[in-house]
Amino acid sequence: MAKSRLQRLQIESDISLLIEKPIDLLYFTGLHLSRGRLFVEKERVRLFVDGRYFHWAADRAPCEVLEWDAFLKVDAKKVQFDSTYLSYDGFVHYQKLCPGIEWIPEPHLTSPFRKIKEAKEIHALRKAARLTLLGIEHVAQMLKVGVTEKELVLEFELFILKHGAEKLSFEPIIAFGKNSAFPHHRSGYTPLSENAVVLIDAGAVVDEYAGDLTRVYYFQKPDPNIVRLEKIVEEAQAKALSLIRPGILLKELDRAVREIFSRENVKQFYMHSLGHGIGLEVHEFPLIRETAGSEGKIEEGMVFTIEPGLYEPGRGGVRLEEMVEVTETGSRLLVERGVDTVQGM
Amino acid sequence: MAKSRLQRLQIESDISLLIEKPIDLLYFTGLHLSRGRLFVEKERVRLFVDGRYFHWAADRAPCEVLEWDAFLKVDAKKVQFDSTYLSYDGFVHYQKLCPGIEWIPEPHLTSPFRKIKEAKEIHALRKAARLTLLGIEHVAQMLKVGVTEKELVLEFELFILKHGAEKLSFEPIIAFGKNSAFPHHRSGYTPLSENAVVLIDAGAVVDEYAGDLTRVYYFQKPDPNIVRLEKIVEEAQAKALSLIRPGILLKELDRAVREIFSRENVKQFYMHSLGHGIGLEVHEFPLIRETAGSEGKIEEGMVFTIEPGLYEPGRGGVRLEEMVEVTETGSRLLVERGVDTVQGM
Repeated sequence: MAKSRLQRLQIESDISLLIEKPIDLLYFTGLHLSRGRLFVEKERVRLFVDGRYFHWAADRAPCEVLEWDAFLKVDAKKVQFDSTYLSYDGFVHYQKLCPGIEWIPEPHLTSPFRKIKEAKEIHALRKAARLTLLGIEHVAQMLKVGVTEKELVLEFELFILKHGAEKLSFEPIIAFGKNSAFPHHRSGYTPLSENAVVLIDAGAVVDEYAGDLTRVYYFQKPDPNIVRLEKIVEEAQAKALSLIRPGILLKELDRAVREIFSRENVKQFYMHSLGHGIGLEVHEFPLIRETAGSEGKIEEGMVFTIEPGLYEPGRGGVRLEEMVEVTETGSRLLVERGVDTVQGM
Repeated sequence: MAKSRLQRLQIESDISLLIEKPIDLLYFTGLHLSRGRLFVEKERVRLFVDGRYFHWAADRAPCEVLEWDAFLKVDAKKVQFDSTYLSYDGFVHYQKLCPGIEWIPEPHLTSPFRKIKEAKEIHALRKAARLTLLGIEHVAQMLKVGVTEKELVLEFELFILKHGAEKLSFEPIIAFGKNSAFPHHRSGYTPLSENAVVLIDAGAVVDEYAGDLTRVYYFQKPDPNIVRLEKIVEEAQAKALSLIRPGILLKELDRAVREIFSRENVKQFYMHSLGHGIGLEVHEFPLIRETAGSEGKIEEGMVFTIEPGLYEPGRGGVRLEEMVEVTETGSRLLVERGVDTVQGM
């Protein structure tokens, strides 16, 4: 796997690439390195690591491995770096260290590679999505008056770890009642009270890949105002999903959602982007929103979330989040609601 | 707490501060924000957040809260930013957005504040260290032929979560036999075999603060070569600990350790820094090594690890790691080996 990815990275131009972000190093070399430099030239790929990793990486890397400081002697004229990752100080440092090199900023340097998922990656993402859904359904069965958000967060984590997850994709957002009106609520000691809405946004990492789903439950009697928001969010999500196919602009999806929210006079309750790519990282390329940053087109092999939400301050919120694979002619959800079982994994 | 920290941040000069790193935002405001701008001027502190956080933060922040884009209208001449955090693109972006401002790079902008721990922080760090040690001792009791590194990693995580940890400080490094020769070994499916050395480097986060300890166990019969390394590491650690007091240069600690390793002809087996500050992050200021980066002096209230290690390729390694609080006249370990019990927490 890592070998063929390195081959895809083989470049034609005279501009070399410097890759330093640990998750990119994992993607291209298969190695977990907290620090490393992958240097890609026309006919050569080298990995530079420090003493902590040298012997370990030399035994495992799909390319040449050299000592960290040997990088200072590379003979290159133009080098592209990830300008959204390298710090200002890092940039200044390289300019001083290697004065002969022209450093060329390239935002999200590796996203053209990583945004299109291989079959093996989609397989891992599906496993992550399935376990995520099972975990959410597991804690949804534990709803009772007095249970706290934090207790359910812990239960979700214990459940996924026991069933094969490596870790959480992110700190789960479990929000009771009014707390659900904060899209990034931090789960705390709020006890579940009668007739509260329950929002669960959580994810499990399986085989290195991140899951991320959101479900909403009504504990006892639903609030008709929240139910109304949910119906609108459902319609918006269905609309966005129906539009997905290669060639469509990403921003078109968000625009369609905003049109529905405007028509229903609830657009002031929508305050985040519609979705995000997902893979080794829970938030990856592409970003899906109407405003800047989503100029690109949908491509086959992308995997992203579609997660419209409406949040009414003081009352509560609804977000529904699916993980979607772009196919040749449309899209496919990575999990269907309520279909999987633990045994089925 | 957060209020008084903001007061400490109040500056005298005409140079304002822009703080964006999420862990710094947590430190100064008490809020978990994945994105925010804390802008500190002589007589005013403002927090800028986007729509996801606005209402939530406005209810909780110890300072004024404004909408994200309102930042573009701030009236400032000179602004310091954390040049080790802000990306190259971020810097270019700010220069374009706010052409009237002179942007002044300051590496690790907030470390002068965060490197000195308050009593409350040391209390949390001690809790984290205790639970970390309990977790390590828990998995050390599970050593038996055939158990895998990964199983023990999971056991450590389940144990600390059940006993009040929020999460792991980092992916635990549990290394059997020869694997211990890699300081950053990634735990895998290696089964424990007879007479193997076992290295456990792990940490629990409690009350937001990170624990980080390393212990070495002999499973059955010790390898005399490893025992020899262990004795040298023990001597080096004891020497470093004995030198700690306010006013000493940080690099002096590492130099003393290197002297012992040179005397014993094992310095080629030492390949990382001696230690690192610890707090909200598992790796913080100060860094402790002989080479560049540790020019500063030890100060009362610092908390850092002391973790010399020796790694013999093909045989195995020993690292011993303690968490240390700097006192007025010397230092104090945050946990003593084998003293604490679950009930004692």
